[in-house]
Order: sequence, then C-alpha cells, then structure tokens
Amino acid sequence: MSLLHLEDFAAGQTFDLGHHTFGEDEIVAFATQFDPQPFHVDTDAAAASNFGGLIASGWHTGSVFMRLLVDGLLARCASMGSPGVDELRWLAPVRPGDTLTATLHIEDVRPSKSRPDRGFISTRAILTNQDNIEVFTLRAPLMIRRRPDSAG
Amino acid sequence: MSLLHLEDFAAGQTFDLGHHTFGEDEIVAFATQFDPQPFHVDTDAAAASNFGGLIASGWHTGSVFMRLLVDGLLARCASMGSPGVDELRWLAPVRPGDTLTATLHIEDVRPSKSRPDRGFISTRAILTNQDNIEVFTLRAPLMIRRRPDSAG
Repeated sequence: MSLLHLEDFAAGQTFDLGHHTFGEDEIVAFATQFDPQPFHVDTDAAAASNFGGLIASGWHTGSVFMRLLVDGLLARCASMGSPGVDELRWLAPVRPGDTLTATLHIEDVRPSKSRPDRGFISTRAILTNQDNIEVFTLRAPLMIRRRPDSAG
Repeated sequence: MSLLHLEDFAAGQTFDLGHHTFGEDEIVAFATQFDPQPFHVDTDAAAASNFGGLIASGWHTGSVFMRLLVDGLLARCASMGSPGVDELRWLAPVRPGDTLTATLHIEDVRPSKSRPDRGFISTRAILTNQDNIEVFTLRAPLMIRRRPDSAG
C-alpha cells in the first residue's frame, strides 16, 4: 500500500477517524496512572464534585483521539510527528459509556521553507459524543513527508 | 491540610513539580495503547526514522506532565478542572532514560465573571531534560475554587 504524502492532502478534506467508547475501568486506570484527581478516580468523590460523577481525564481523551488519528489516518501516511498543539478545548465531560466519534478537517497544506523533504498540514479535530455534543476540539499541525520526486 | 484556593495564587509564582524518568518499557506501553507510530513502538523502525531512535509519544509526555502537576500542586489545591490548552509545544524528543523536570509559572489570576465560586489561573509549564534542554512547554488555564467566604 502506498503511503499518503504531503501532496495527497488539500485544504477542505475531511477524514472520518472512527469512534471509541470509554469504559469506567479504562477511565479510572488512565487517571490512576496520570491524573489521579478525585473526579477522575473516585466514584463517590466525583458524584459530590461539580461534575456530578466520574469523568475521563482530558489527557485520556486526547490520547484516545491520538489513537483514532493513528488508526484512521497516520498509519497510512508518511507521518514525521508534530511540533505541538495550537489549541485544545475540553468542552464537555466524557463519562463512562460515552462513545466519541472523531473527524479531522484539513485547513491548510504547506511545504516546509527550510526542509525540502517535508511539509505541514494544519488540522482541526472534533470529537462528538453519542448525543452529538462536541466534547473535544483540537487545532494542530502535522509534519508529513513529501514524495521524494517532488522534493527540492 | 487546608487546600489552596484562588486567593492563594498570584502572578509571578513558580511551583517546582518534580521530575520523572522515562523508561523504554513505559514509552512502548503507552504508545502501543495510544500512539502506535513506528518511531514510538518499534526500536528498529525508530532507528531508521528521522528521530534516529525510539521517542515518547507527545501525549505520553503531556500525561506525565499532568501527573507531576497533580502530585506537585493540584492534590493540595481546590481544583475544578481546565477548559483546555492554549498552546503546547513538543520542542525536542524524549528518549528512554531521559529525566524531565517540570516547573509551573503563574502568569495571571482572575475570578470568573459568571460564577462567583471560582476563578482561573493562567499557567505556563516548562519541562526540561537532564541536559537542561526544554522539551515541552504548555500554556493552559486552570479552574480553581474561591474560598467560600470570598465568593459573591
């Protein structure tokens, strides 16, 4: 299978990245390791918090988005990583049993000015839950290899 | 122990959040679950990549930062979560054996205009490795409860 390169992307494209259902066990396991705040790991404390129940760590949601991005796009793409995130919003709680569906929009494509073998795509990701509520959005550049015959 | 509330924060404060050493096993374990790109999970493929060896997923680094933030500050703070991240930069690779040290700078403190029980602190986090190279920076607001007797 030939990998997608920078030349295969264009502003206006949308990629369906699939979905993931958050189990209570995985929410607690992730947060126990990385974000052990009471409203992520303790059912009773979470019920008494301003969230009214257990919610996933925002870093868990981001990491699940990353997995959907790899499976849904980067695994078939000449990906070279990313320099960072320009904006991330946790808009609504993610609760046990929630199913998030991810979509990636391509907003811009540009070759690197300093390195002829690569370029950047500007992406905007949106995760919506089963009630069609946006729970997570992210703007980030991705670094993608150019086709060897187009570099220079 | 009395929790830190919004009134305990001021622009210019700096918090030492401690450090974490990334083992190769944990780098591969995290990436296998959340970011299975070759340069995060496959030693040979990573050596042949533009990174020249295995590197941690950026979401792993972010999640480890979150753990340092909880242990180093939020566990003794009336934290109410965060609306998101304003900017995140993965500045240099994190490799097996690297020790990252985290510092949090408070840049602004402001009560919520709509909800008298809470406010926001604007933070900037910097993670440096054992060679004093900045590998990760993040700007994010944190939502903190006000002292009950100061609300209204």
